[in-house]
Amino acid sequence: MPHNHFKLIKTSNNARAGELYTPHGTVTTPVFMPVGSQATVKTLTPAEIKDTGFDMVLANTYHLYLRPGIEVIEEMGGLHRFMAWDGAMLTDSGGYQVFSLAPLCKISDEGVTFRSHIDGSEHFLTPELAIQYQESLGADVIMVLDECTAYGDSRKKVSQAMDRTHRWAERCLKAQKGKTQALYAIVQGGMFPELRKQSAECLTALDFPGYAIGGLSVGEPKETTFAMVEETAALLPVEKPRYLMGVGSPEDIVEAVARGIDIFDCALPARVARNGALFTSKGRVNIRRAAYRKMDAPIDPDCDCYACRNFTAAYLSHLFRADELLGLRLATVHNLRFIANLVRKIRNSILADTFEDFRRDFLAAYQPTDEKARVEQKGKWLKGREKEG
Amino acid sequence: MPHNHFKLIKTSNNARAGELYTPHGTVTTPVFMPVGSQATVKTLTPAEIKDTGFDMVLANTYHLYLRPGIEVIEEMGGLHRFMAWDGAMLTDSGGYQVFSLAPLCKISDEGVTFRSHIDGSEHFLTPELAIQYQESLGADVIMVLDECTAYGDSRKKVSQAMDRTHRWAERCLKAQKGKTQALYAIVQGGMFPELRKQSAECLTALDFPGYAIGGLSVGEPKETTFAMVEETAALLPVEKPRYLMGVGSPEDIVEAVARGIDIFDCALPARVARNGALFTSKGRVNIRRAAYRKMDAPIDPDCDCYACRNFTAAYLSHLFRADELLGLRLATVHNLRFIANLVRKIRNSILADTFEDFRRDFLAAYQPTDEKARVEQKGKWLKGREKEG
Repeated sequence: MPHNHFKLIKTSNNARAGELYTPHGTVTTPVFMPVGSQATVKTLTPAEIKDTGFDMVLANTYHLYLRPGIEVIEEMGGLHRFMAWDGAMLTDSGGYQVFSLAPLCKISDEGVTFRSHIDGSEHFLTPELAIQYQESLGADVIMVLDECTAYGDSRKKVSQAMDRTHRWAERCLKAQKGKTQALYAIVQGGMFPELRKQSAECLTALDFPGYAIGGLSVGEPKETTFAMVEETAALLPVEKPRYLMGVGSPEDIVEAVARGIDIFDCALPARVARNGALFTSKGRVNIRRAAYRKMDAPIDPDCDCYACRNFTAAYLSHLFRADELLGLRLATVHNLRFIANLVRKIRNSILADTFEDFRRDFLAAYQPTDEKARVEQKGKWLKGREKEG
Repeated sequence: MPHNHFKLIKTSNNARAGELYTPHGTVTTPVFMPVGSQATVKTLTPAEIKDTGFDMVLANTYHLYLRPGIEVIEEMGGLHRFMAWDGAMLTDSGGYQVFSLAPLCKISDEGVTFRSHIDGSEHFLTPELAIQYQESLGADVIMVLDECTAYGDSRKKVSQAMDRTHRWAERCLKAQKGKTQALYAIVQGGMFPELRKQSAECLTALDFPGYAIGGLSVGEPKETTFAMVEETAALLPVEKPRYLMGVGSPEDIVEAVARGIDIFDCALPARVARNGALFTSKGRVNIRRAAYRKMDAPIDPDCDCYACRNFTAAYLSHLFRADELLGLRLATVHNLRFIANLVRKIRNSILADTFEDFRRDFLAAYQPTDEKARVEQKGKWLKGREKEG
């Protein structure tokens, strides 16, 4: 596993600016990874991902294992070449999708049996296989297989799953053959601070090059999410990168950075874009609203994305009403550009030690989705994060 | 109406190379116009249309009249600005879509009553309104309203529709207020050579800046299509551009150029692309075939399109199997680039007076869709050319 994978450059209260060193280039942190579940960030070319402001993407081992199959991608020279992405990349272990998308999963110490959500075929995933698949895919950062629990699960159930996650983490470490991929552990422990503490202590003792916080944003109130993030991040080694899995709305990124998180991924910005919900400096707006039918101005005059530089809100509104695919593209570019700019501004404010000012001003101006909508949107654990998980 | 709208540069037998002069630039002919029915060439940005090799696009007045409405586009400064396309543009009159897509149409000398295929609302289109709408949209080339007939219609019915088309053409001429848009007439007459002759004579006497051949490729055998094209083209003035409406498969473009056609539009290349049918120098192939799942080479090694320069057939195959929108984009770019390259090669061969050699070699190598598939695909007159018409 790589040494010197991460360098902390500057802190501003608990917020951190750093650099990740990968075989596919240096990535500044905080970093947001667009989600390319099926070896494509939905609707975009690799060049557009770069142009929109991203140096690192996430792909899902579960999806790629089922289709086109790990061996196809291996034969094509790995995932970077297959999807023509020469930037940095992280793959997850497949665990989250097995628990959230696949029916009939059965778990034992050995591994997890699941059925494909595509054709119902039965499969078996172990920590060793999760590493083998991720070595074949060849991402720069790979993840241990963990056991995920749901919001509301009992302390006992969460504790048992956490213990198994720890045993699996050790097996993943042992299974790793290559030397160039950074393998991150995943801290579990549900909504129980003392379990989070146990998990962090157990996993940091194993000296992984990075640590993820898993099992959050699964339906719990936002205060709970951030209380857990704060407690857990404080237990992680300062010199290692911290990755909050599956979180990435604008307001959540700001709040998580404030608590010491470096790395994010989330399908939400692109998914809500495809539903017509667009980020602006004042909050989310829906392009399908009648008000936009004749708006002779970009959706967000402050935005420098390709869509806002070239098209009116009226045109975008038309594309959505006419079910034109270009609408999905432009909305995706817009929301991802918003996130890229947000993360850049966050980093600059950390470097200037003005992050708390930025945080206050941003959250005062930005109208986040209300709690109810958020819970509806993200809370359906076991139905999870749609197909693109 | 513009004078000197077209210049014939060179002929090679009946094939012609020329130039169209428009307020949005000079367009070399033969020219193929990608179809942007709803103010977007499906899946592509304006920059991609240009980069793929096109200087002129077509948009459908019928679709835009219904959605977003002519007045919205007029308020946005016209169709060029609305869709951010600064190249040349042609709009049709809406007639073809009224006859092929809209239910319950009723025709009289005054005009045609139809119902929206979107919401069933009733509308009335006249030659004068067709011109007014097209002046509001502001394309460089606009079309008269014509009455379309079906393959198999009686001589009497075709003759009556043709006479009405002639009366409407005169009314369109009179209705035109602007001076910059080139208004083209449409020769009708079904599959009856003597009616085609009458129609060409009547309309050329009115001295339009360009002439279209309408009412072909509506289900008749291909020999009939090209017999009609040949007869009709021979009756049109040499110094005016000739537009064969709705024809644009690779093999049909070659055959129509051989008979003196200058301008083409067709939704087919992009539509079949979205179904996974891709043009190669050897003919059409379907990316969904199992053979492509592991093909570590571009779909067409001779192709210089963005998709073939960056991705393997295996990746494209994966995108289609996984229902990813990027697949539709890459396939569209590929097929349209094939058409752009074909048209460029045709023009070069005309300029070098080697068109007949090119035609022979191309048709010998290229496996066209068989007649049956072609008839199935295009023959459903009155269900016509899908939504994008």
